[in-house]
Amino acid sequence: MIEPKLAVCYYPEHWPEDRWREDARRMRELGLSFVRIGEFAWSRLEPAEGVYDLDWLQRAIEVLHEAGLGVVLGTPTATPPRWLVGKMPDMLAQDKEGRPRAFGSRRHYCFSHEGYTGECARIVTVLAERFGRHPAVVAWQTDNEYGCHDTVESYSPAARVAFQKWCARKHNDIAALNRAWGNVFWSMELSAFDEIGLPHLTVTEPNPAHVLDFRRFSSDQAIAFNRRQVEIIRRFSPGRAILHNFMGAFDAFDHYGLSKDLDAAAWDSYPLGFLERSRRDDAFKSRYMRVGDPDFQAFHHDLYRACGRGRWWVMEQQPGAVNWGAWNPAPAPGAVRLWTHEAFAAGAEVVSYFRWRQAPFAQEQMHEGLLLPNSEPNAACGEIARVMRDLASCGPFPKTSRADVALVFDYESAWAWAIQPQGRDFSYFDLVFDVYRALRRAGASIDVVPPEPDAVKDRRLILAPGLFAPRESFVAALETCGAVILLGPRAGSKTVDFQIPPDLPPGPLRRLVDVSVTRVESLRPGAEVAIGDAGVFHRWREFLKLGGAAAAELRAVDGETALARSENAFYLAGWPDERLMDAVLRRLFESAGLTGLRLPEGLRIRDEGGRRHFFNYGPDAADLRPFLGERAFLLGEDMLEPCGVAVAETRAAAK
Amino acid sequence: MIEPKLAVCYYPEHWPEDRWREDARRMRELGLSFVRIGEFAWSRLEPAEGVYDLDWLQRAIEVLHEAGLGVVLGTPTATPPRWLVGKMPDMLAQDKEGRPRAFGSRRHYCFSHEGYTGECARIVTVLAERFGRHPAVVAWQTDNEYGCHDTVESYSPAARVAFQKWCARKHNDIAALNRAWGNVFWSMELSAFDEIGLPHLTVTEPNPAHVLDFRRFSSDQAIAFNRRQVEIIRRFSPGRAILHNFMGAFDAFDHYGLSKDLDAAAWDSYPLGFLERSRRDDAFKSRYMRVGDPDFQAFHHDLYRACGRGRWWVMEQQPGAVNWGAWNPAPAPGAVRLWTHEAFAAGAEVVSYFRWRQAPFAQEQMHEGLLLPNSEPNAACGEIARVMRDLASCGPFPKTSRADVALVFDYESAWAWAIQPQGRDFSYFDLVFDVYRALRRAGASIDVVPPEPDAVKDRRLILAPGLFAPRESFVAALETCGAVILLGPRAGSKTVDFQIPPDLPPGPLRRLVDVSVTRVESLRPGAEVAIGDAGVFHRWREFLKLGGAAAAELRAVDGETALARSENAFYLAGWPDERLMDAVLRRLFESAGLTGLRLPEGLRIRDEGGRRHFFNYGPDAADLRPFLGERAFLLGEDMLEPCGVAVAETRAAAK
Amino acid sequence: MIEPKLAVCYYPEHWPEDRWREDARRMRELGLSFVRIGEFAWSRLEPAEGVYDLDWLQRAIEVLHEAGLGVVLGTPTATPPRWLVGKMPDMLAQDKEGRPRAFGSRRHYCFSHEGYTGECARIVTVLAERFGRHPAVVAWQTDNEYGCHDTVESYSPAARVAFQKWCARKHNDIAALNRAWGNVFWSMELSAFDEIGLPHLTVTEPNPAHVLDFRRFSSDQAIAFNRRQVEIIRRFSPGRAILHNFMGAFDAFDHYGLSKDLDAAAWDSYPLGFLERSRRDDAFKSRYMRVGDPDFQAFHHDLYRACGRGRWWVMEQQPGAVNWGAWNPAPAPGAVRLWTHEAFAAGAEVVSYFRWRQAPFAQEQMHEGLLLPNSEPNAACGEIARVMRDLASCGPFPKTSRADVALVFDYESAWAWAIQPQGRDFSYFDLVFDVYRALRRAGASIDVVPPEPDAVKDRRLILAPGLFAPRESFVAALETCGAVILLGPRAGSKTVDFQIPPDLPPGPLRRLVDVSVTRVESLRPGAEVAIGDAGVFHRWREFLKLGGAAAAELRAVDGETALARSENAFYLAGWPDERLMDAVLRRLFESAGLTGLRLPEGLRIRDEGGRRHFFNYGPDAADLRPFLGERAFLLGEDMLEPCGVAVAETRAAAK
Repeated sequence: MIEPKLAVCYYPEHWPEDRWREDARRMRELGLSFVRIGEFAWSRLEPAEGVYDLDWLQRAIEVLHEAGLGVVLGTPTATPPRWLVGKMPDMLAQDKEGRPRAFGSRRHYCFSHEGYTGECARIVTVLAERFGRHPAVVAWQTDNEYGCHDTVESYSPAARVAFQKWCARKHNDIAALNRAWGNVFWSMELSAFDEIGLPHLTVTEPNPAHVLDFRRFSSDQAIAFNRRQVEIIRRFSPGRAILHNFMGAFDAFDHYGLSKDLDAAAWDSYPLGFLERSRRDDAFKSRYMRVGDPDFQAFHHDLYRACGRGRWWVMEQQPGAVNWGAWNPAPAPGAVRLWTHEAFAAGAEVVSYFRWRQAPFAQEQMHEGLLLPNSEPNAACGEIARVMRDLASCGPFPKTSRADVALVFDYESAWAWAIQPQGRDFSYFDLVFDVYRALRRAGASIDVVPPEPDAVKDRRLILAPGLFAPRESFVAALETCGAVILLGPRAGSKTVDFQIPPDLPPGPLRRLVDVSVTRVESLRPGAEVAIGDAGVFHRWREFLKLGGAAAAELRAVDGETALARSENAFYLAGWPDERLMDAVLRRLFESAGLTGLRLPEGLRIRDEGGRRHFFNYGPDAADLRPFLGERAFLLGEDMLEPCGVAVAETRAAAK
Repeated sequence: MIEPKLAVCYYPEHWPEDRWREDARRMRELGLSFVRIGEFAWSRLEPAEGVYDLDWLQRAIEVLHEAGLGVVLGTPTATPPRWLVGKMPDMLAQDKEGRPRAFGSRRHYCFSHEGYTGECARIVTVLAERFGRHPAVVAWQTDNEYGCHDTVESYSPAARVAFQKWCARKHNDIAALNRAWGNVFWSMELSAFDEIGLPHLTVTEPNPAHVLDFRRFSSDQAIAFNRRQVEIIRRFSPGRAILHNFMGAFDAFDHYGLSKDLDAAAWDSYPLGFLERSRRDDAFKSRYMRVGDPDFQAFHHDLYRACGRGRWWVMEQQPGAVNWGAWNPAPAPGAVRLWTHEAFAAGAEVVSYFRWRQAPFAQEQMHEGLLLPNSEPNAACGEIARVMRDLASCGPFPKTSRADVALVFDYESAWAWAIQPQGRDFSYFDLVFDVYRALRRAGASIDVVPPEPDAVKDRRLILAPGLFAPRESFVAALETCGAVILLGPRAGSKTVDFQIPPDLPPGPLRRLVDVSVTRVESLRPGAEVAIGDAGVFHRWREFLKLGGAAAAELRAVDGETALARSENAFYLAGWPDERLMDAVLRRLFESAGLTGLRLPEGLRIRDEGGRRHFFNYGPDAADLRPFLGERAFLLGEDMLEPCGVAVAETRAAAK
Repeated sequence: MIEPKLAVCYYPEHWPEDRWREDARRMRELGLSFVRIGEFAWSRLEPAEGVYDLDWLQRAIEVLHEAGLGVVLGTPTATPPRWLVGKMPDMLAQDKEGRPRAFGSRRHYCFSHEGYTGECARIVTVLAERFGRHPAVVAWQTDNEYGCHDTVESYSPAARVAFQKWCARKHNDIAALNRAWGNVFWSMELSAFDEIGLPHLTVTEPNPAHVLDFRRFSSDQAIAFNRRQVEIIRRFSPGRAILHNFMGAFDAFDHYGLSKDLDAAAWDSYPLGFLERSRRDDAFKSRYMRVGDPDFQAFHHDLYRACGRGRWWVMEQQPGAVNWGAWNPAPAPGAVRLWTHEAFAAGAEVVSYFRWRQAPFAQEQMHEGLLLPNSEPNAACGEIARVMRDLASCGPFPKTSRADVALVFDYESAWAWAIQPQGRDFSYFDLVFDVYRALRRAGASIDVVPPEPDAVKDRRLILAPGLFAPRESFVAALETCGAVILLGPRAGSKTVDFQIPPDLPPGPLRRLVDVSVTRVESLRPGAEVAIGDAGVFHRWREFLKLGGAAAAELRAVDGETALARSENAFYLAGWPDERLMDAVLRRLFESAGLTGLRLPEGLRIRDEGGRRHFFNYGPDAADLRPFLGERAFLLGEDMLEPCGVAVAETRAAAK
C-alpha cells in the first residue's frame, strides 16, 4: 500500500526571510509533507563567478526541517545566470532560424556546449556536497522541465560539432551514413562527417533520416546532460530519490531513456493549460474548460508510471488559473481535489502543488498559488483540506498492479511522424491518445508502455498504433506473448533508418498479421471513408493486401479491408473515429476475454487492488449505480456531483 | 466660435513646376485654406550631403501664397535619403528579429541613433531658418506618423546602449532595478547596467517589467526626437503652430506626452482602412465597409482633442479608396462629407484631405486623391463643395466645452496589457473603445482623457476601465472629484513596476471601491458568464471580495459579484458585452443625474454649444424626430438619408 | 497526326545495377517508349571535384537502349553536390529574410553566382560530349523545375551585384531609373547604380517598380542560366529535342521567354497535389480530391503548348498519391488514365509518369510510383495498360489546330498584381483561370497565348483580363485582328514602369474600348456588387467613364457600367462570379459567331480535328448524348462512368 503525500513548490529566495517560518508552519498545518525548493536560484547561490552564497539555502532547509517538512532540492541549471552567459556567450542555444536565444527568461542553454555542461557539473557538485546528506533532503529534482519552450534541439555550432561526432560514432564510416540516409537521392552524398549540417534552413524539407538522427542525437544530449547531474548527486547524496519533472503532451526526447537514470519519474500536471493548448475542437475545450480533458491527466499518469518503473510523482499540480494558456480560466470548484485523486488512484507517491504563494512579480505573476500574493489562502487550500479528509477516510492506497491492457507509446515514433506526417494533421500523440480515450470510455485500467519486450509480458491486450520501426526483440516478444494485439495504422511502416521496409509495411510485424500495405493516403478534414456502418476512417487510410493467413474482419464501403486479423493479432488500416474505435475495441475485448463498459461522457473510473475510483468530469451529476457492482463506497455515494470523486471497494477486498 | 477650415496635402516635387499655379488656383476655388507640403522631400532638399536645393520649395511656397493659401510645412525626417544611410548604416532601426530595416521605403531610422538625430537637427534648422518666418507658413508638422509600420521600438545596438543609460538614470543602482523588475525570478539578476539586453529573442517571454521599461524608454526616445525638432522650429519660426500627425488605433508611444511639446494635435483619419484593419467581425466590417465604424472617428477626435489640449486637426482625411487595407472599397457617396462634419462637430480647426492629386507612381499610387492622376476632379471634390455650402449654412461652430463624461485612455495601460494580455484577445484599446461605443449609443458627448488630476475635475461621470497602475495624485483626484466613477476590470491591478499590489488589486483604487480582486480568468471565445439577465461577461472575469464599505449591485449566476459599489464609485468585475455595458451605463447615468438615449444602430449624435449634430452611418434613412427635442434644423431635416448629416440648434441658442 | 508516347522517370543510381535490365524489360512490356534519367545525379557523376564517374550512366543508357527505350537525359544542376558548396559557399541562394539556403535538399543555388554557373557549364559540357550523340538519347531536360520551392529570386550578394548591372543596362543612367521608378516619392532617389538594394526587409512595402524590375531581372537570370545549358547541348547533341519540365500554377519567371530556347515545353502534372495547394474552397477540394480540378490540367496543357510553340510533353505525371500536399489522397480508379487522355487530346507528344519505382528512402519516399518499393506493380500499371489499349482503338491523334478562342496569360501581369494586389485575394492566375473555367464550361477549345501580335491572328474571340501593361505592338495587333475582344478588369492599368497611364487606365487599350477607369475598389469576401440579375462582381470592381464611342452593355444596380462595348471590343469592369462570367461569355460567343455549350459540372470536352474527347471528372455517370451531335464513338459509349474517357469522331472525319 502507498501513503499518498502532498507537497508544494516554494521559492524562499522570493520572500523576506522572516516570513519563512510562518510559511512552513502553514504548510504543515495544511497537511503538506514535502517542499520543493532551489531550482532557478543559481543567481542567488552563486551571485558572481565562483562566489557562492549557500547559507540562505541552508537556513531555508533548516526552517522547513524544523517544521517537519521534507525537502526536494532542485538543481538550478535551467537558469544560467547573466555572468555565466557573459563568460561564454556561445553557450546559448540557437533556434531553428539560426538565431542565438537571448538571456532574459530561462532554458537559454545548449545541451551540447561543453563549457556549460562543465559549469553545471560544478554547481551541482557544490550543492550536493553541501546539502546531499542533510536529513531534511528527501529527494532531488534535476534541472526543470527539460525541453520546455522548444529547447531540446539547438542549432548552435556546438550542437553541430557534437552531432557530427554522434553520427561518426553511430555510422562509423560516411558511406554507411550515406546508405542509411539514402543520400544518393538529390545528390546529398557526403564525403566526411564534418560535412554534416544541421537539418534546418534548407530550401525544401531536409532528408527525414537526417532529421530523425538529429532528433535522436538531441534526445541523447538531454539524457547525457541529466545523467551527469544524477551521477554527482548519487555520489554525494546517497539514499535520496532523484527525479525530474517532465511535461504533458511533450515528446521531444526519450523520456523512458532519461528516466532510466532516475529513481522515479514526475510530471507537471496543468489540466486547463494543456486542454487549451491541445488540438481538440472549440466545443470540447469550452465543455471542459474548468476541469480539463477527462483523459489527459490519466494518460500521463500511466505514461510516467511506466517511465518511473512504477514510481512517480506529480511534481507541479495546477491549483488555480495559470498564465500560459491562450486563455486561462479558473478551475471549477472541486477540480483541484479531482485532479489530486486521479493522481493517487494511478499510483502517485506525491502530488505537489505549484506554487505556495503567487509571485507578485516577473513572468509568472498571473499564475495562481495556494496563497494569494498577500498570503491569504486561495481557493485551492479548501480543496487540499478536503483531500486530507478523504485520505483519512480511504486509508492507504493499493499499489498499482500490472494492467491487463498495455498501450505502446514510443518517442521515436512521435519524432518520425512529426518529421513525415504525410497529412498535415497526423500526430502520433493524438493517434495513441485517441486509442487511450476509447480504452478509458470502456472503463479499462491501462499501462502505457515502451516498445520493449518486458512491457508486453503478462498482458491480455496490447495495442501499438502507429509504431514506427519496431525492433526485432519487441516483435519477437509480441509473437510469443499470447495476448490479443492491435497494430496499425502506420505500424512497422519504416526501418530504423527511416526507409520503407524492403517487403513493404508492416515489415516484421507481418509475422503477427499477414498483410502488406500497398498504398496509404491522408484525408483532408471532412473527407471520410465509411467502414460499413461501424464508423469511419478519417485523416489516414491504408490499402491492404491480405496474405493467406489473414482475414478481413471489417471492410470499407469500397470493399477494401479495414480491419484484418491473423489469429489473435489485428491490423487496423486507418485512423478510426470514436465510434469505429469503440467497435474495434469491443471485438478486441471479446477476443481477449475482457469486459468493457460504456461509461457516460465525462465519467471515468480506475480499478486498482479491489477498489474502483470514480471521477466526474461532466457538468451534471452522474449515477454510479450501473458501475458499482458489488462494491461499497469508501468515499462518495450513488450520485456523483460534478468534479466529484468516489471510491468504492469490493466486499472481498474490504478489510 | 471656430471657423472650420479645409486643407489638402500636396507634393509639388512630384509634379512639373508649370502645373503648380493651376493646382493652387483650383485648391482655392474648391474652398481650401491650407496646404501641407515638404515632408518626405529630403532627397530633393539635400540631394547630396551638405548640398542644399531649397529654391524649388521657396517657389512652391510663393505660388501657394500668391493664391491665398497658407502653408503647413513638414520636416522630412521620416525619409532619410540614401546617401545618409550610406554614410551611417548603423542609423537603421532593427526589427524584433534583429535584422536591420533596409532602405527603400520610409521610417528606416532608429530614434536612438545620435548621428541620425544630429542630421535631423541640421536639416530642420536649415528649413526653419529659411522658411520659418515666411508669411505663407502658418504651421509646421514634425516628421510624419511617428511609429507607423511598427517603428517606435528598435532593437539596434544604438537602442541597446541608450536603453541601458535610460535604465541607469531611472533606477540609479542595479540592485534597485533587480528589485523593481523582480529579477530574482528565474535568476535574471544583473550586476551592471551594461548587462541589460533588449527584450527580444528570449526563449520564452521576457520579464514584463523589462518589456514595460523598454516601451517607456522607446516612447521617451520618440518624444525626445520630436522635442528637438520643436525647439529648433520655435526658435526660427515664431508664432506658427507646431503639430504632428498621429494615427488611429495606435498607442506605441505616449501621445499625451509628445503632444505637450506641440501647439495642437492632429491625426490621420482613414475610416475605411482602419475598419478593415480592426478586430471587428466580418459582419460588422461588411456592414460599414463604405462608411467606416460609426464610433472610431469620434473616439480619436475626442482623444486627440485631449492631446492638443483642445486644439486639434485632421491632418489627413481619406477622400476615396486607399491602398493599404487588406481590402480597399470606395467610400459611399456622402461619406467624405460625413467624416468632415464629424471632425468639425468635435472641434477640429482644420480638416486636410490626403492628397491633392493621386500619384501615378511608387507605393501609394492606388491611394485616391481629390484629383485623378490626370488632374480631373475625383468624387471627393463634389463632397467638399457641399461641405463648403454646409459651412455657409451653419456659420461658425461652437467651441468644444468640457464634457460631463470623461473616459480615461492611458498609453501605459495599453503597453502593459499588450505585454501581459493573460487572454489572447485582451486588448486595452478594445476594452476602452467598447465603453466608448456604449457612451455613444447613449448619445453622450465625451472627453477622452489621460489619467491625470486635471482631467477629472468638473465631471459628472468618469470611467477608467483597465487602468494599469494609477498614480497617487490621480487616485486622490478621483477621491475628491465628486463624480460617479466606474473602475475595473483590471483597474489598479499593478504597481508602476509591473507587480501585483501588496494588498491585491485594485491597489490604491480600493479607497474608491472597497473590493479586493482575489482571482481573475480569461475566457475563450464563446465562454461567457451570465450576469443575471442583464448580459454577460466575456473575455475577462474577476472574483471580488467585498469589504465592509462595498455592496454588490449586480451578481453573476454563480453568485459572484459582477458590479460592486461604494457610494458613487463602481467596480465592474469583467468585460461586458454590449447589452451588459448598456445596463451598467444606465445605472451610472442615473447615479450621475445624466440622461441617456437609445440611439438606433448607425445613428450617432454630438451635442455642443446648444447644437446637436446628427450622423447617419446606417444603410437606411433615420428618423431624427425622437432625438430632436426643442431644436430646429440648421442643416437637414427629419429624415436623415444614409451618410447624411444634420445640425439642429436649441431655440434658445438660435441667434 | 501524332503518335502519343508514354514514358517514365527513372533513377538507375538508386537501385542495384543488376536490377536495371529487368526494369527496362518491364517498362517496354508496359508500353513505355522513353525513360528520363540523370537529373539529380551530380554526386554520382562527379563524386569529388574533377573526378568523374560517367561509366555507370553509360551502362544504364545501354541497358535501356538495348530494351528499345529512348532516353531523355537530364542535366544535374538542380542539385549541386556538397563538395561544390564547400568550395564556394557563397553560391547558396539567400531567402527573402536574408538567410543563406542550406545544403541538404535541392535547388540551393543562386542563378546569379558566376562561379556556380561556370560549374554548371562544365558538368553539362562533360555530359553532352559523352552522351550527346548516343543513339538512345532522344531528348534532354535542362535542370529540374526551375523555381521550385520559391527559388527564382535570390537575395544574395551575387544577386545584388547582378541586379545593379541589369538596372544599369536597362536604365542607362540613374536619373532615368529614378524617374521610371518614381523615386522622388519618399525620398527614395539614388545617385548611383551601386546604391540599389534588393527589395526586401524594408520597413513597409518597397517601391512596386523596384520589385517589378527585380522580378524581371530574376526571370532573366533563370532564362540566361537555361540558355547557357541549351547552347552547350546543341553543340554536342545535335538533333535532340531540348526541354525543361515546368510546373503548375507557377509564374515566377517568363516561361514563354525561357521556352524560346527550347525545342518543346514540358510540365509536371500533379492534379491532386495542385488541387490541394490551390485557393479553391474546401467543398471543391473535397469534391475533386481524388480526380483533380477538372480544368487545371487542361489550362496548363494549353499554356505549355503555347510555350512550346505547339510541341509539348507531360514530363512528370502523377501516378498515385504524392508526398507534398497538405493532404495526399489516392487517385480514384481511372484517374491516371483520364489525366493521360486529357494530355494527349491537348496535343502532348509524350506523357511520362513520375516515377518508375517508389523510392524507399529520403524526401520522396511517400511519393508513389508505377511500382511499389518491392517492385510489384502499383495500381497505375493497370491504367497504363488500358491506355495502351485505348491508343490502339483510337489510332494516331490529330495535331492540334489554331483555336478560335485565345486567352492571354502574361507572366509580367502575374508579377505586377502579386506586387500590388490592392485586395488581399487578387490573384492574376485566379482571374485568368476563372475565365478559362467559363470557356471550358462552354465547351470551347482554347489557346492560351502570350500578349504578342502573332498570338491573336486568326482568332474569333480574344480575352485579356488583367493584362498589366500591354505593349504597343500588341495593342495594334488587337486593333486590326478583327476578333471579338474582352478586356478588363485592370487591363492596361499601368505603364511598363508600373505607373498609372497619364490618360488613366486602360491606357492604350482605350483605342479598343472607349472607357476610362476613374476608380477601383477591392471587395472583402462576402461583399458583392450585383450586376442586374446576371450575377455579381466580387473581389474587384471598377468605375468607368464612357467615351462617346462606348455603350453600356450591362449595368450594376447602382447604375455604374459593368460591361462596356465599342464595336467588337468589350471591357468588363470587375471580377465576375461564375454566373456573370457565363452570361458575359454568351454575349461574346454570340458576337463572335461561336456556339457555346452548357456542360454539366464535372464533364469536360475537347474538340480537335473532327474528334470530340469527353472527360468525366464528376462522381456520377454522365450522359453524353446531348453533346454527341453527329459523331460516333471511337472509345466509350453514351453513358460515361466517373473518371471515364470517351472519344467520338464526326462521320465526315471518320476514315
